[in-house]
Amino acid sequence: MTLRRKLWNGLDPEARVLPGFSLLNKVIISVILLSVVSALLGTEQALTEGYEAYWNIWDNFVVSFFAIEYAGRIWVCVENSRNGSGWRGRLRYALSLPALIDLAVLAPAILFSVGSEAYVARLFRLMRILQLARLGRFSRAMDLMSTALHQRRTELQLSLAVAVVLVIVSSTLLYVVEGGHQPESFGSIPRAMWWSIATLTTVGYGDVVPITPLGRMLSAITAIMGIGLIAMPAGILASAFSDALEERRRKAEAE
Amino acid sequence: MTLRRKLWNGLDPEARVLPGFSLLNKVIISVILLSVVSALLGTEQALTEGYEAYWNIWDNFVVSFFAIEYAGRIWVCVENSRNGSGWRGRLRYALSLPALIDLAVLAPAILFSVGSEAYVARLFRLMRILQLARLGRFSRAMDLMSTALHQRRTELQLSLAVAVVLVIVSSTLLYVVEGGHQPESFGSIPRAMWWSIATLTTVGYGDVVPITPLGRMLSAITAIMGIGLIAMPAGILASAFSDALEERRRKAEAE
Amino acid sequence: MTLRRKLWNGLDPEARVLPGFSLLNKVIISVILLSVVSALLGTEQALTEGYEAYWNIWDNFVVSFFAIEYAGRIWVCVENSRNGSGWRGRLRYALSLPALIDLAVLAPAILFSVGSEAYVARLFRLMRILQLARLGRFSRAMDLMSTALHQRRTELQLSLAVAVVLVIVSSTLLYVVEGGHQPESFGSIPRAMWWSIATLTTVGYGDVVPITPLGRMLSAITAIMGIGLIAMPAGILASAFSDALEERRRKAEAE
Amino acid sequence: MTLRRKLWNGLDPEARVLPGFSLLNKVIISVILLSVVSALLGTEQALTEGYEAYWNIWDNFVVSFFAIEYAGRIWVCVENSRNGSGWRGRLRYALSLPALIDLAVLAPAILFSVGSEAYVARLFRLMRILQLARLGRFSRAMDLMSTALHQRRTELQLSLAVAVVLVIVSSTLLYVVEGGHQPESFGSIPRAMWWSIATLTTVGYGDVVPITPLGRMLSAITAIMGIGLIAMPAGILASAFSDALEERRRKAEAE
Repeated sequence: MTLRRKLWNGLDPEARVLPGFSLLNKVIISVILLSVVSALLGTEQALTEGYEAYWNIWDNFVVSFFAIEYAGRIWVCVENSRNGSGWRGRLRYALSLPALIDLAVLAPAILFSVGSEAYVARLFRLMRILQLARLGRFSRAMDLMSTALHQRRTELQLSLAVAVVLVIVSSTLLYVVEGGHQPESFGSIPRAMWWSIATLTTVGYGDVVPITPLGRMLSAITAIMGIGLIAMPAGILASAFSDALEERRRKAEAE
Repeated sequence: MTLRRKLWNGLDPEARVLPGFSLLNKVIISVILLSVVSALLGTEQALTEGYEAYWNIWDNFVVSFFAIEYAGRIWVCVENSRNGSGWRGRLRYALSLPALIDLAVLAPAILFSVGSEAYVARLFRLMRILQLARLGRFSRAMDLMSTALHQRRTELQLSLAVAVVLVIVSSTLLYVVEGGHQPESFGSIPRAMWWSIATLTTVGYGDVVPITPLGRMLSAITAIMGIGLIAMPAGILASAFSDALEERRRKAEAE
Repeated sequence: MTLRRKLWNGLDPEARVLPGFSLLNKVIISVILLSVVSALLGTEQALTEGYEAYWNIWDNFVVSFFAIEYAGRIWVCVENSRNGSGWRGRLRYALSLPALIDLAVLAPAILFSVGSEAYVARLFRLMRILQLARLGRFSRAMDLMSTALHQRRTELQLSLAVAVVLVIVSSTLLYVVEGGHQPESFGSIPRAMWWSIATLTTVGYGDVVPITPLGRMLSAITAIMGIGLIAMPAGILASAFSDALEERRRKAEAE
Repeated sequence: MTLRRKLWNGLDPEARVLPGFSLLNKVIISVILLSVVSALLGTEQALTEGYEAYWNIWDNFVVSFFAIEYAGRIWVCVENSRNGSGWRGRLRYALSLPALIDLAVLAPAILFSVGSEAYVARLFRLMRILQLARLGRFSRAMDLMSTALHQRRTELQLSLAVAVVLVIVSSTLLYVVEGGHQPESFGSIPRAMWWSIATLTTVGYGDVVPITPLGRMLSAITAIMGIGLIAMPAGILASAFSDALEERRRKAEAE
């Protein structure tokens, strides 16, 4: 077996016969997770100030690691028959979605790592979060969930439409009732919507609350409607999951 | 085919043989949505100040558009055999609910557009929100939902009744316990209800909270009851949707 | 038919052959509802100040009405064979729960209506809320609900036990972590429980929040646990209602 | 029957033939509950100041009680054939989890009860909460719940993964949008996560809210996503409980 084939066996999950991930892919997944976590933590000044040297070493390691991984994948991709052979095969792979995400993460990190402002470099570091998309392979449970969500598409859309109408009606009423008393918070319908969504989702920040008796009465009705708004998708999803699982069981029995 | 019949084919969904909406109705739906969104945004001073001229042009366009649409519908309605023919048929159509909504949106817009205060004109512009009712044609999903809600009518009414009793009992207790300490917020039962509903729906604005240990204990119990209050309709609706869908499947198999 | 028997037909729901309520009972139910609503509203000074005369007339009317109703029921109760006849039957009825509730509402209203302080009279007026218990006759839906709740008794108790353990653990942790920084809010476990219950039920008043990074981390985990705490009873009740209805349907088919 | 065997019958639930708990175990359970409640309340200065003498008596009683219980269990454990006989059997029992928990509660209480600071003693007293684990024997309902949770393991993990991604994405967006305006609350992604989790779980403390229009728009979308995040586990658990119960019923019918 050539070195290229060996490396391909380690890199491409499709090349693997055994279940689970290869050792190389486990290392790559770990580095992705660490790089995402470090990108998130790296925005906190309390954690970076005074440790810039260590952060730079780590950043350079991550960028180098992904650059080598990218180069490696471009080199071995022709082993996968789906991509075809030669430079044409490599180009086809380079234009596939996973390879483009890799490039989007990598390119700015290389371009802006030298000589640019710390703030800009930090923002581009956040691009690494995109790599989480590469981890999205919880196949079976994911399938079941997307089936369940897809089958109840219309019901979920309808409950979203009901939510939109409730937001419009409640914020219009509160604008009319409270607008004169609290122009800062209810002086226009878009402003009242902030309160309306916080109430209907039962988040209830409490930064904006009605103060007139009529406004509070309408607010109480809105809050009660909000419970229905939570109960509806919960009910729809409950029956969706229940059906999707029964379907799967039936198929398993039929086989 | 006469012009009137052609126009009727475009305007009346009942005249259409193909599924979906005609091009003319798609245009009308778009104008309705835009007019509603603009009525909502038009209440925000930051978006209107300095642009009054543009808003006036748009308002005049919308009013003219709906006026022409209204006139057109009155003209062609006699093509629909349900309305009958001649002026009698036109009168019957004009007194139907959709036509009355159209008129309710149109009439004040025309009457108050000239010479009235900006505030009054803006309020009447909000009447356009009524036109959302014209869009309510998500037939199948809507049917399923209303069936589900209707079949569990008594259970949902009962959980509303339980909610009302919980609101009364908890606000009475907090009025007795906290009334003396915070007369502004708990000095009467209707005042304590504001807190009670915010707690039972788990909205929890936090503008009004008990401060005595006993009040906090009662408040904690109320919050826990609130979870039951959310769980109950969620459970009722879940089993309702599940049943409504099974019913539909059975009917589909029987055919 | 004697007058007593006629009156009994009107007063006692058991005497009625037709479905629904008799005219007399409809009047009584209306007066009960009005008296409860007025007792609630009567605690609000803004609604009573300056109108004391009208409130007194209404209070006297309500008390007289219930006094006459009570006397009437005592008089006619012997028509119901369950109570037996003569004074012994009347005594047995007078010691039944509904009659005792009536008396508990009536007695203090008569005793304290004359010459006592307004505050005391108002508190006793709140006793009228007890009369709501007399309205609890939503038989079929109530049965279904209590069956559903009863069958899942152990599961619901268990999720309450899980909730209690979560409250204890989270408030102990926050007491240890935040106690030194916010002694007023987290200086003891019972104090931290106020925050803990507000978080786990997702009420989130926001009057008490952790300020240390570790406290916020623990708080975030508590909030996520809280979602599970809502999802669990919702799931239990959903399957309970679904089962209770299927049971009923099976019985209906078997008959 | 020897005294050791008699005592074993009272102490070890496995020795009992009748359902329920023996009298001795009921006493022990009561003391455990009282000791946990007193450990929780004992952190509140308002309840301890001036009553130190009574608290000390109670603490000494509790410690002595558990010390005697522990000694007793060590003595009688050899009656249970699972532990084996002699000192080897006693050692095996002493190293089992329940016995180690007992020791963890007991040892610091004895070591630190004399001569140490009140604060330290109070913290070790909290170890008693561990004893709640000894009460965890709601066998049937517990089994059903763990079966239901276990069967939907992957779905629940997936919805947790979706939650993590939503937290990361929403806090990154708010950090970019609001970071400049409210550096204290949104100046880094870990800081923005505090707001993000409070919003997605619909807790909504309200101590941190976005103030820019774009930030509020993103916050509204986050709050709506939060409803989905509650609905999803509720739906998964509802179908899980429903299935677990049907399974049990089938087995019961098959027997």
